[in-house]
Amino acid sequence: MLQVIKSIKDMKQKIKTIKDSHLTIGFVPTMGALHEGHLSLVRNAKKEHDEVVVSIFVNPLQFGKNEDLRHYPRTFDRDCELLSREGVNLVFYPDITEIYPDGFCTSVIVHDLEDKLCGKTRPGHFRGVAVVVLKLFHLIKPDSAYFGQKDFQQTVIIKRMVYDLNLDINVKVLPTIRNTEGLALSSRNVYLTETEKKDALCLYQSLVKAQCMATSGITDTEKIIREMKKIIHTCASATIDYISIVNPETLEITSEVRNGNVVTLAIRIGRTRLIDNVILTF
Amino acid sequence: MLQVIKSIKDMKQKIKTIKDSHLTIGFVPTMGALHEGHLSLVRNAKKEHDEVVVSIFVNPLQFGKNEDLRHYPRTFDRDCELLSREGVNLVFYPDITEIYPDGFCTSVIVHDLEDKLCGKTRPGHFRGVAVVVLKLFHLIKPDSAYFGQKDFQQTVIIKRMVYDLNLDINVKVLPTIRNTEGLALSSRNVYLTETEKKDALCLYQSLVKAQCMATSGITDTEKIIREMKKIIHTCASATIDYISIVNPETLEITSEVRNGNVVTLAIRIGRTRLIDNVILTF
Repeated sequence: MLQVIKSIKDMKQKIKTIKDSHLTIGFVPTMGALHEGHLSLVRNAKKEHDEVVVSIFVNPLQFGKNEDLRHYPRTFDRDCELLSREGVNLVFYPDITEIYPDGFCTSVIVHDLEDKLCGKTRPGHFRGVAVVVLKLFHLIKPDSAYFGQKDFQQTVIIKRMVYDLNLDINVKVLPTIRNTEGLALSSRNVYLTETEKKDALCLYQSLVKAQCMATSGITDTEKIIREMKKIIHTCASATIDYISIVNPETLEITSEVRNGNVVTLAIRIGRTRLIDNVILTF
Repeated sequence: MLQVIKSIKDMKQKIKTIKDSHLTIGFVPTMGALHEGHLSLVRNAKKEHDEVVVSIFVNPLQFGKNEDLRHYPRTFDRDCELLSREGVNLVFYPDITEIYPDGFCTSVIVHDLEDKLCGKTRPGHFRGVAVVVLKLFHLIKPDSAYFGQKDFQQTVIIKRMVYDLNLDINVKVLPTIRNTEGLALSSRNVYLTETEKKDALCLYQSLVKAQCMATSGITDTEKIIREMKKIIHTCASATIDYISIVNPETLEITSEVRNGNVVTLAIRIGRTRLIDNVILTF
């Protein structure tokens, strides 16, 4: 039976009960508008832990002034239905004032990692992510926390934060879930028109191109990115924010591609900004 | 029997054992060079908890470039002797590389509070404090952590951080311990010559003056500070960094003194920067 908890006080009490029973906790932090990507995290959490906690909180601190905070999809009832079907018992669904009470003024900065890639276009975004995730970690005290590979930079930053701050939490990063044509699932895909949805396939196509080139022995980053850009440019509605090939821990750009490097990109399709990435293996 | 633990791994193991036995932990973070101020914290921690952990770590991140990191007093053997006598069993004494491994890049900022008062003269100081205290909290998982009132701004910042980040830690602030003449105990007092030690009494004298004026019904901040300055100026070796009367939670300067406001100051005696404060009660 799905229990929705809105207050921090009740959540702490619940977590205490779970901990006192020596049960392990798998935690899936989300902003709701759940899709198969989230559900894949939930399924893994469930497989690996006694209890699963899913948080649903559209975190204002991680949205820029001109971003889509107001329009971000909110589908709470449907989310609960989906989670119920997965056998989730516990959803944390706090109000903004519960998470950020009057006078709240603490932020967490993972320097070096937060201002690269998406951080350039979205200044402050990853500080907002880091602080809310840290708060949720403190509240829910999970043994493992689950994140999707799609939000690659986010996963790198959270892993670094957890390591730097000596948290005993296993950060698990699971593969990006795609539709049958390759489009990475994202809550923001609902913004896309039917035409844009087709255009948006160029993201994955360009990533596949990069993988193929690397497999065929091409290691020149510039050359690979040039070919990727050609694919993106075939789409009238696409604008490139960035395409980079980076070290998966430092996010430093590589000039020579190595096994395990990550090709990561942010592309605007019409007015919708989409991100995607693949880990290069060859 | 006092056990000194240097590695994070061993410390985590030890804390796990304590937690598994359902014992409570009182934690006293220090930079060593212990004095009666620290020992008063230790005694309270011991009275209120099953186990006491004292950390000794001279935290480089909280020292400015031209500050006294290299010369900060280090008296480890004597510290252990003192703690042994107090019946402390557990000291955490990590190396710098243990706390800040390669690639460490996370910082914690308590905005609004960190750049006031001491933060003006010591930019970055409180970020260094916040991050190391947060790391130690994660490692040691205390029920309560003990701090001295002397480091007033530090206590306000740590309380705010603990609240903002939803940590389940009781932050206990205990009264400043003074020598018989009123000088607040501080590890940095060893820098003072005999003459300077006498000069340094002007800090407490000026604070007592403020308390007396408030008690006698004077609420005009400027008037009180003017009288305090007169006392400081009688000392040839004293230079005022700041004297402020502030709200004890927001650190905002008050123009009209209220019960519970804090008079706080930083004064250089020769080359040594000393801080002190009193809570005004009337």
